Amino acid sequence: MDRDALRKTYRGYIDCLNARDWQRLDRFVGAAVRYNGAVIGLEGYRAMLRADVAAIPDLRFEIATLVADPPVVASRLLFDCTPVGMLFGLPVNGRHLHFEENVFYTFADGRIDDVRSIIDKAAIAAQL
Amino acid sequence: MDRDALRKTYRGYIDCLNARDWQRLDRFVGAAVRYNGAVIGLEGYRAMLRADVAAIPDLRFEIATLVADPPVVASRLLFDCTPVGMLFGLPVNGRHLHFEENVFYTFADGRIDDVRSIIDKAAIAAQL
Repeated sequence: MDRDALRKTYRGYIDCLNARDWQRLDRFVGAAVRYNGAVIGLEGYRAMLRADVAAIPDLRFEIATLVADPPVVASRLLFDCTPVGMLFGLPVNGRHLHFEENVFYTFADGRIDDVRSIIDKAAIAAQL
Repeated sequence: MDRDALRKTYRGYIDCLNARDWQRLDRFVGAAVRYNGAVIGLEGYRAMLRADVAAIPDLRFEIATLVADPPVVASRLLFDCTPVGMLFGLPVNGRHLHFEENVFYTFADGRIDDVRSIIDKAAIAAQL
Protein backbone atom coordinates (compact mmCIF):
# COMPACT_ATOMS: atom_id res chain seq x y z
CA MET A 1 0.00 0.00 0.00
CA ASP A 2 1.19 3.51 -0.70
CA ARG A 3 0.95 6.28 1.83
CA ASP A 4 -2.53 7.45 0.84
CA ALA A 5 -3.95 3.94 0.79
CA LEU A 6 -2.42 3.26 4.18
CA ARG A 7 -3.94 6.44 5.58
CA LYS A 8 -7.34 5.56 4.14
CA THR A 9 -7.19 2.02 5.51
CA TYR A 10 -6.26 3.33 8.94
CA ARG A 11 -9.18 5.77 8.95
CA GLY A 12 -11.43 2.85 7.96
CA TYR A 13 -10.09 0.90 10.94
CA ILE A 14 -10.87 3.77 13.34
CA ASP A 15 -14.37 4.13 11.84
CA CYS A 16 -14.87 0.40 12.37
CA LEU A 17 -13.91 0.72 16.04
CA ASN A 18 -16.16 3.74 16.58
CA ALA A 19 -19.05 1.85 14.94
CA ARG A 20 -18.38 -1.18 17.23
CA ASP A 21 -18.44 -3.20 13.99
CA TRP A 22 -16.49 -6.15 15.41
CA GLN A 23 -17.43 -8.50 12.59
CA ARG A 24 -15.72 -6.24 10.05
CA LEU A 25 -12.54 -6.03 12.13
CA ASP A 26 -10.94 -8.81 10.04
CA ARG A 27 -10.69 -6.40 7.11
CA PHE A 28 -8.21 -4.33 9.11
CA VAL A 29 -6.53 -6.64 11.61
CA GLY A 30 -4.39 -9.66 10.69
CA ALA A 31 -5.05 -13.17 12.01
CA ALA A 32 -1.76 -13.31 13.95
CA VAL A 33 -1.61 -9.71 15.14
CA ARG A 34 0.84 -8.82 17.92
CA TYR A 35 0.04 -6.24 20.59
CA ASN A 36 2.95 -4.80 22.58
CA GLY A 37 5.04 -7.84 21.79
CA ALA A 38 2.47 -10.59 22.50
CA VAL A 39 0.71 -12.52 19.74
CA ILE A 40 -2.96 -12.05 20.60
CA GLY A 41 -4.42 -12.78 17.16
CA LEU A 42 -7.62 -11.38 15.67
CA GLU A 43 -9.83 -13.04 18.29
CA GLY A 44 -7.71 -11.70 21.12
CA TYR A 45 -7.82 -8.25 19.54
CA ARG A 46 -11.60 -8.39 19.24
CA ALA A 47 -11.89 -9.52 22.86
CA MET A 48 -9.62 -6.65 23.97
CA LEU A 49 -11.82 -4.11 22.17
CA ARG A 50 -15.02 -5.60 23.60
CA ALA A 51 -13.49 -5.36 27.08
CA ASP A 52 -12.45 -1.74 26.42
CA VAL A 53 -16.02 -0.85 25.44
CA ALA A 54 -17.44 -2.68 28.46
CA ALA A 55 -15.14 -0.58 30.70
CA ILE A 56 -15.79 2.62 28.70
CA PRO A 57 -19.28 2.55 27.17
CA ASP A 58 -18.79 5.98 25.51
CA LEU A 59 -15.34 5.08 24.12
CA ARG A 60 -14.54 6.98 20.93
CA PHE A 61 -11.24 7.03 19.07
CA GLU A 62 -10.28 10.48 17.77
CA ILE A 63 -7.22 10.86 15.56
CA ALA A 64 -5.17 13.96 16.48
CA THR A 65 -2.11 13.22 14.31
CA LEU A 66 -1.78 10.57 11.62
CA VAL A 67 1.60 9.74 10.12
CA ALA A 68 1.91 7.22 7.29
CA ASP A 69 5.24 5.84 6.13
CA PRO A 70 4.59 2.38 4.62
CA PRO A 71 4.37 -0.18 6.08
CA VAL A 72 3.95 1.81 9.32
CA VAL A 73 1.21 4.15 10.55
CA ALA A 74 1.78 6.19 13.71
CA SER A 75 -1.19 7.83 15.35
CA ARG A 76 -1.86 10.14 18.26
CA LEU A 77 -5.26 9.20 19.60
CA LEU A 78 -7.35 11.35 21.93
CA PHE A 79 -9.95 10.00 24.34
CA ASP A 80 -12.62 12.03 26.04
CA CYS A 81 -14.75 9.50 27.90
CA THR A 82 -16.40 8.23 31.06
CA PRO A 83 -15.14 4.81 32.24
CA VAL A 84 -17.71 3.16 34.48
CA GLY A 85 -15.52 1.36 37.03
CA MET A 86 -11.82 0.47 37.09
CA LEU A 87 -9.55 1.45 34.22
CA PHE A 88 -5.94 0.23 34.03
CA GLY A 89 -6.22 -0.65 37.71
CA LEU A 90 -7.43 2.83 38.64
CA PRO A 91 -10.82 3.50 40.27
CA VAL A 92 -12.33 5.90 37.72
CA ASN A 93 -15.96 5.12 38.67
CA GLY A 94 -17.80 7.32 36.20
CA ARG A 95 -15.48 10.31 36.24
CA HIS A 96 -15.02 12.11 32.93
CA LEU A 97 -11.46 11.74 31.61
CA HIS A 98 -9.22 13.06 28.86
CA PHE A 99 -6.20 11.00 27.92
CA GLU A 100 -4.00 10.17 24.98
CA GLU A 101 -2.39 7.19 23.29
CA ASN A 102 0.65 7.27 21.02
CA VAL A 103 0.58 4.14 18.89
CA PHE A 104 2.47 2.55 16.00
CA TYR A 105 0.92 -0.02 13.64
CA THR A 106 2.95 -2.10 11.20
CA PHE A 107 0.88 -3.43 8.30
CA ALA A 108 1.43 -6.70 6.41
CA ASP A 109 -0.71 -7.88 3.48
CA GLY A 110 -2.99 -4.87 3.94
CA ARG A 111 -3.77 -5.53 7.59
CA ILE A 112 -2.43 -4.52 10.98
CA ASP A 113 0.20 -7.06 11.96
CA ASP A 114 1.97 -5.40 14.91
CA VAL A 115 0.83 -2.73 17.39
CA ARG A 116 3.06 -0.82 19.81
CA SER A 117 0.92 1.34 22.05
CA ILE A 118 1.62 3.57 25.02
CA ILE A 119 -1.38 5.04 26.83
CA ASP A 120 -0.78 7.97 29.15
CA LYS A 121 -1.92 6.22 32.34
CA ALA A 122 -0.11 8.78 34.51
CA ALA A 123 -2.43 11.47 33.08
CA ILE A 124 -5.43 9.36 34.10
CA ALA A 125 -4.09 8.88 37.63
CA ALA A 126 -3.54 12.66 37.87
CA GLN A 127 -7.23 13.29 37.07
CA LEU A 128 -8.52 11.08 39.89
CA MET B 1 12.17 19.00 4.05
CA ASP B 2 11.29 15.81 2.21
CA ARG B 3 10.97 12.50 3.96
CA ASP B 4 14.64 11.50 3.63
CA ALA B 5 15.90 14.88 4.82
CA LEU B 6 13.53 14.74 7.77
CA ARG B 7 14.74 11.26 8.69
CA LYS B 8 18.37 12.36 8.42
CA THR B 9 17.76 15.47 10.53
CA TYR B 10 16.01 13.39 13.18
CA ARG B 11 18.92 10.93 13.34
CA GLY B 12 21.25 13.92 13.70
CA TYR B 13 19.12 15.13 16.62
CA ILE B 14 19.35 11.74 18.36
CA ASP B 15 23.13 11.63 17.77
CA CYS B 16 23.35 15.11 19.30
CA LEU B 17 21.49 13.92 22.42
CA ASN B 18 23.62 10.80 22.77
CA ALA B 19 26.78 12.93 22.43
CA ARG B 20 25.44 15.35 25.14
CA ASP B 21 26.27 18.07 22.62
CA TRP B 22 23.93 20.64 24.16
CA GLN B 23 25.48 23.60 22.34
CA ARG B 24 24.56 22.07 18.98
CA LEU B 25 20.94 21.47 20.06
CA ASP B 26 19.85 24.72 18.38
CA ARG B 27 20.46 23.11 14.99
CA PHE B 28 17.60 20.70 15.71
CA VAL B 29 15.25 22.38 18.19
CA GLY B 30 13.33 25.60 17.52
CA ALA B 31 13.51 28.66 19.76
CA ALA B 32 9.82 28.42 20.76
CA VAL B 33 9.50 24.64 20.96
CA ARG B 34 6.44 23.20 22.72
CA TYR B 35 6.63 20.02 24.79
CA ASN B 36 3.35 18.23 25.54
CA GLY B 37 1.42 21.43 25.03
CA ALA B 38 3.63 23.84 27.00
CA VAL B 39 5.99 26.34 25.36
CA ILE B 40 9.33 25.54 26.98
CA GLY B 41 11.60 27.04 24.32
CA LEU B 42 15.11 25.95 23.41
CA GLU B 43 16.53 26.83 26.84
CA GLY B 44 13.79 24.90 28.61
CA TYR B 45 14.41 21.94 26.30
CA ARG B 46 18.14 22.04 27.04
CA ALA B 47 17.43 22.25 30.78
CA MET B 48 15.06 19.26 30.53
CA LEU B 49 17.73 17.18 28.79
CA ARG B 50 20.41 18.17 31.32
CA ALA B 51 18.04 17.12 34.11
CA ASP B 52 17.33 13.81 32.34
CA VAL B 53 21.05 13.07 32.13
CA ALA B 54 21.58 14.06 35.77
CA ALA B 55 18.86 11.55 36.75
CA ILE B 56 20.10 8.92 34.27
CA PRO B 57 23.87 9.25 33.75
CA ASP B 58 23.95 6.35 31.24
CA LEU B 59 20.92 7.67 29.28
CA ARG B 60 21.05 6.63 25.61
CA PHE B 61 18.32 7.15 23.02
CA GLU B 62 17.85 4.16 20.71
CA ILE B 63 15.47 4.43 17.77
CA ALA B 64 13.36 1.28 17.34
CA THR B 65 10.94 2.62 14.70
CA LEU B 66 11.23 5.85 12.75
CA VAL B 67 8.33 7.13 10.68
CA ALA B 68 8.66 10.28 8.58
CA ASP B 69 5.71 12.02 6.97
CA PRO B 70 6.60 15.72 6.57
CA PRO B 71 6.37 17.82 8.63
CA VAL B 72 6.00 15.09 11.28
CA VAL B 73 8.40 12.43 12.57
CA ALA B 74 7.12 9.70 14.86
CA SER B 75 9.61 7.61 16.76
CA ARG B 76 9.59 4.64 19.08
CA LEU B 77 12.50 5.10 21.44
CA LEU B 78 13.99 2.38 23.64
CA PHE B 79 15.84 3.03 26.87
CA ASP B 80 18.05 0.56 28.67
CA CYS B 81 19.54 2.50 31.56
CA THR B 82 20.29 2.90 35.27
CA PRO B 83 18.65 5.96 36.88
CA VAL B 84 20.50 6.91 40.05
CA GLY B 85 17.66 8.12 42.29
CA MET B 86 14.06 9.08 41.61
CA LEU B 87 12.63 8.90 38.10
CA PHE B 88 9.15 10.25 37.30
CA GLY B 89 8.45 10.19 41.02
CA LEU B 90 9.49 6.55 41.35
CA PRO B 91 12.37 5.39 43.59
CA VAL B 92 14.56 3.66 41.01
CA ASN B 93 17.80 4.07 43.03
CA GLY B 94 20.27 2.47 40.64
CA ARG B 95 18.12 -0.35 39.36
CA HIS B 96 18.59 -1.28 35.70
CA LEU B 97 15.48 -0.48 33.64
CA HIS B 98 14.07 -1.01 30.17
CA PHE B 99 11.32 1.30 29.03
CA GLU B 100 9.92 2.90 25.91
CA GLU B 101 8.71 6.25 24.65
CA ASN B 102 6.35 6.84 21.72
CA VAL B 103 6.88 10.38 20.50
CA PHE B 104 5.74 12.70 17.70
CA TYR B 105 7.76 15.72 16.54
CA THR B 106 6.36 18.39 14.24
CA PHE B 107 9.06 20.34 12.39
CA ALA B 108 8.91 23.98 11.27
CA ASP B 109 11.70 25.76 9.38
CA GLY B 110 13.87 22.66 9.65
CA ARG B 111 13.68 22.39 13.44
CA ILE B 112 11.54 20.62 16.02
CA ASP B 113 8.66 22.93 16.88
CA ASP B 114 6.24 20.65 18.77
CA VAL B 115 6.79 17.42 20.73
CA ARG B 116 4.08 15.05 21.95
CA SER B 117 5.64 12.34 24.07
CA ILE B 118 4.27 9.47 26.11
CA ILE B 119 6.75 7.50 28.22
CA ASP B 120 5.67 4.10 29.51
CA LYS B 121 5.89 4.98 33.22
CA ALA B 122 3.67 2.04 34.17
CA ALA B 123 6.36 -0.28 32.77
CA ILE B 124 8.93 1.40 35.01
CA ALA B 125 6.72 1.05 38.08
CA ALA B 126 6.25 -2.65 37.25
CA GLN B 127 10.04 -3.17 37.28
CA LEU B 128 10.49 -1.78 40.80
